Amino acid sequence: MSQRAVLLSFVFLFPLIPSASPGGDAERLPQYRTVAKRLLEAGLRDSDAYAMLLELTTRAPRRLAGLAGADSALRVTKEMMERRGFERVRLEPVIVPHWVRGPVEKAEILIPGRRPIPLSVCALGGSIATPKGGITAEVVEVKSFDELRALGGAAQGKIVFFNRPMDPAKLNTFEAYGGAVDQRGQGAVESAHAGGVAALVRSVTLASDDVPHTGAMGYKGGLPKVPAAAVSVKGANLLGDLLRKEKTLRLRITLSCETLPDVPSANVLGEVRGSEKPDEVVVVGGHLDSWDKGTGAHDDASGCVQAIEVVSLLRKLNLTPKRTIRAVMFMNEENGLRGGKAYADAPGRTSEKHIAMFESDRGGFAPRGLTVQADSLVLNKVRLWGVLFEELNAGRIERGGSGADVSAMVGKGIPGFGLDVENHRYFDYHHSANDTIDKVNPRELEMGAVVMALLSFLIAEEGLS
Amino acid sequence: MSQRAVLLSFVFLFPLIPSASPGGDAERLPQYRTVAKRLLEAGLRDSDAYAMLLELTTRAPRRLAGLAGADSALRVTKEMMERRGFERVRLEPVIVPHWVRGPVEKAEILIPGRRPIPLSVCALGGSIATPKGGITAEVVEVKSFDELRALGGAAQGKIVFFNRPMDPAKLNTFEAYGGAVDQRGQGAVESAHAGGVAALVRSVTLASDDVPHTGAMGYKGGLPKVPAAAVSVKGANLLGDLLRKEKTLRLRITLSCETLPDVPSANVLGEVRGSEKPDEVVVVGGHLDSWDKGTGAHDDASGCVQAIEVVSLLRKLNLTPKRTIRAVMFMNEENGLRGGKAYADAPGRTSEKHIAMFESDRGGFAPRGLTVQADSLVLNKVRLWGVLFEELNAGRIERGGSGADVSAMVGKGIPGFGLDVENHRYFDYHHSANDTIDKVNPRELEMGAVVMALLSFLIAEEGLS
Repeated sequence: MSQRAVLLSFVFLFPLIPSASPGGDAERLPQYRTVAKRLLEAGLRDSDAYAMLLELTTRAPRRLAGLAGADSALRVTKEMMERRGFERVRLEPVIVPHWVRGPVEKAEILIPGRRPIPLSVCALGGSIATPKGGITAEVVEVKSFDELRALGGAAQGKIVFFNRPMDPAKLNTFEAYGGAVDQRGQGAVESAHAGGVAALVRSVTLASDDVPHTGAMGYKGGLPKVPAAAVSVKGANLLGDLLRKEKTLRLRITLSCETLPDVPSANVLGEVRGSEKPDEVVVVGGHLDSWDKGTGAHDDASGCVQAIEVVSLLRKLNLTPKRTIRAVMFMNEENGLRGGKAYADAPGRTSEKHIAMFESDRGGFAPRGLTVQADSLVLNKVRLWGVLFEELNAGRIERGGSGADVSAMVGKGIPGFGLDVENHRYFDYHHSANDTIDKVNPRELEMGAVVMALLSFLIAEEGLS
Repeated sequence: MSQRAVLLSFVFLFPLIPSASPGGDAERLPQYRTVAKRLLEAGLRDSDAYAMLLELTTRAPRRLAGLAGADSALRVTKEMMERRGFERVRLEPVIVPHWVRGPVEKAEILIPGRRPIPLSVCALGGSIATPKGGITAEVVEVKSFDELRALGGAAQGKIVFFNRPMDPAKLNTFEAYGGAVDQRGQGAVESAHAGGVAALVRSVTLASDDVPHTGAMGYKGGLPKVPAAAVSVKGANLLGDLLRKEKTLRLRITLSCETLPDVPSANVLGEVRGSEKPDEVVVVGGHLDSWDKGTGAHDDASGCVQAIEVVSLLRKLNLTPKRTIRAVMFMNEENGLRGGKAYADAPGRTSEKHIAMFESDRGGFAPRGLTVQADSLVLNKVRLWGVLFEELNAGRIERGGSGADVSAMVGKGIPGFGLDVENHRYFDYHHSANDTIDKVNPRELEMGAVVMALLSFLIAEEGLS
């Protein structure tokens, strides 16, 4: 066997070596196996998570922080927790940004002697508006910031078109997303830096359709602010093709979005109190806000209802944990992360000891496992429970990010966990009008909640040290 | 650590113990890792499987054996293989049954003083027709054959309504299917045995919709043949509710289906010839026929195009295997298995040595791993390659069925393999008008082909003994 092959085999062997040591929670694996089976059967028989998803996405479909939908979502999820008998259901205040899309977002390709060709576009979240009559300018297409910088003054006065696709050859779509999303986040800054008058960004998606995908973008002090919009993949391909053929092509972009003063909002909390150490807390959460396209069914209504379902399932089965398990609906993940920060800084935190932060924010798809953002000893401890997750078809336990909302707490040294799911479809819907409940399978959504309930319960019973 | 916990941990440890032994194919794991990476990237970049799926389901949408769609499918897949440069592309003859649905299939609930209430029904494959004016009779609802038998003469002259749902609490939907499908296959026999005049069967699905799901059923010599139909889940729930309230309820079922004389058809074969042992063959296949509802996109156009993609990917990457890898499109899996038997009995088989039979027939969903129907030494050998499949997110290698089409060969002692996939959604579409290409994700479909290509290549290079 080659050295390389030996190393490879450790991918499997590594998590198991510690389990050979006697004593500890391994002794209780059989009883936790029974817990896992009860959670599985209760979850799949009822699929209450899906009923909650339907309620949240119909009563509060557009939940961007500051919008009426977000306010509705506070009420809806608070009621959900109260109806299910959660303890200490409450709102904790968060001041959030208030960006509104406004009624106009359009773009047209202008070629002399031809009718204007419309493109499917939408404003990126945080963008300023264009003048009322739009911005009309020539277009320069680039695939990277380096390419733009190498152009020198050639982008001056033009609309900069960022047209690098997600790499389809990556197995993990989050990796492919990470390789393209800089265009959306920083495109306006780079455009302004090059003297451009606007940024038009290819939608960060693997779907080949005519729907624009929005998302957060930023500006940088000392540089002019230029409007920024996303264009659908089909629109981006068309524009790219025409740019190669039509030297006189210009583009008109018109956006009516604006940023209003900050407004008050909240995180929603509810819990099952620990029987032995109620002040030690395992948080399980998702983010309550969503983009204002579609209904945010996968991103992240799914994570929210799964977090509620975790506590609900444990209560239904009379599984009272030794430590408190708290469901948290974080506000404003999409364009500010204020909810996550407010949670970490809230006065109530000082009297509590958090032992884990667990977020579901990768869509309500079939779970594959867990990502762990913590010390190696924590990873090893969780891997001792691996067989239980394997039996739920979610045995992949790897290092990885937990979640944006919990990052403030994880940054303080609290172990972070993320629900890892089958992710091929996620970016097809992400941040677009296609993120709706018909894309969510009730069993897959529920299985995510079952996996989350099992990990939360194990941590609440056994701790992580 | 308890004894139980030790046993549990072996689920992981077991496959790895043999890999510690020196020499053998483990030496070549690193180079196979490179093969896996090349297959992955080539597959995901092109997604040719999806283009083939679109072609097959549009040019040959209704592929039930004996129908024109099945004939079209022979031509379409033969052309696909020829266009991609396969060797020895050919048809091998199969005589198939010829059942046709006919223009009429309906059912109405009749309650005195009320308008007839229509139910969504369809004939089960193989059923006889009703008389032209339908069969009108009282209904007896049962959840099991035991319950029906316990009724004694109470079903005499009635329509027997089999209304046991798939168990939603099973994690594996194939297990839930196995627990309900007897009603469809044997319902007509049991109805006739009890003196019933027809069988109405709750659709074998986990979806809660108004679409009937068809499938094969059988008759038994010595018993009368009675017509058999499937009713949608919503229809079954309505009928069940009304039966409890309306004592005078009767049902009228009208079906126009019939069985015509057998007709000639074929299996389609094409291959890449082995460079060292061309007469040793690894078969990778799916079944070309489908039910006459929807377009059979998941069941099993996906398996067919994946099998073609296996050979196509290897050819594109100039990966010529030592042994022959053959793609086989089996005819008539759904209502006769004649293609699988014909393949096993064909004259050409005597001059060949088959070393593995690998089928994809669980839908074009994200692969999770492999099922192995073979001796333990074969299972162990494949598990030595486990890390390669783990890196494709398909590392679950377990004992399990291979596929119906390959069962005749597996029954002769050839090792059988099945592609295991994420299966929560499969029975939502299965055998219904909803089994269409919009339910298939291009990346998930392609990843199935990549996993199949890797296993086929490994077996063709290394053998299984």
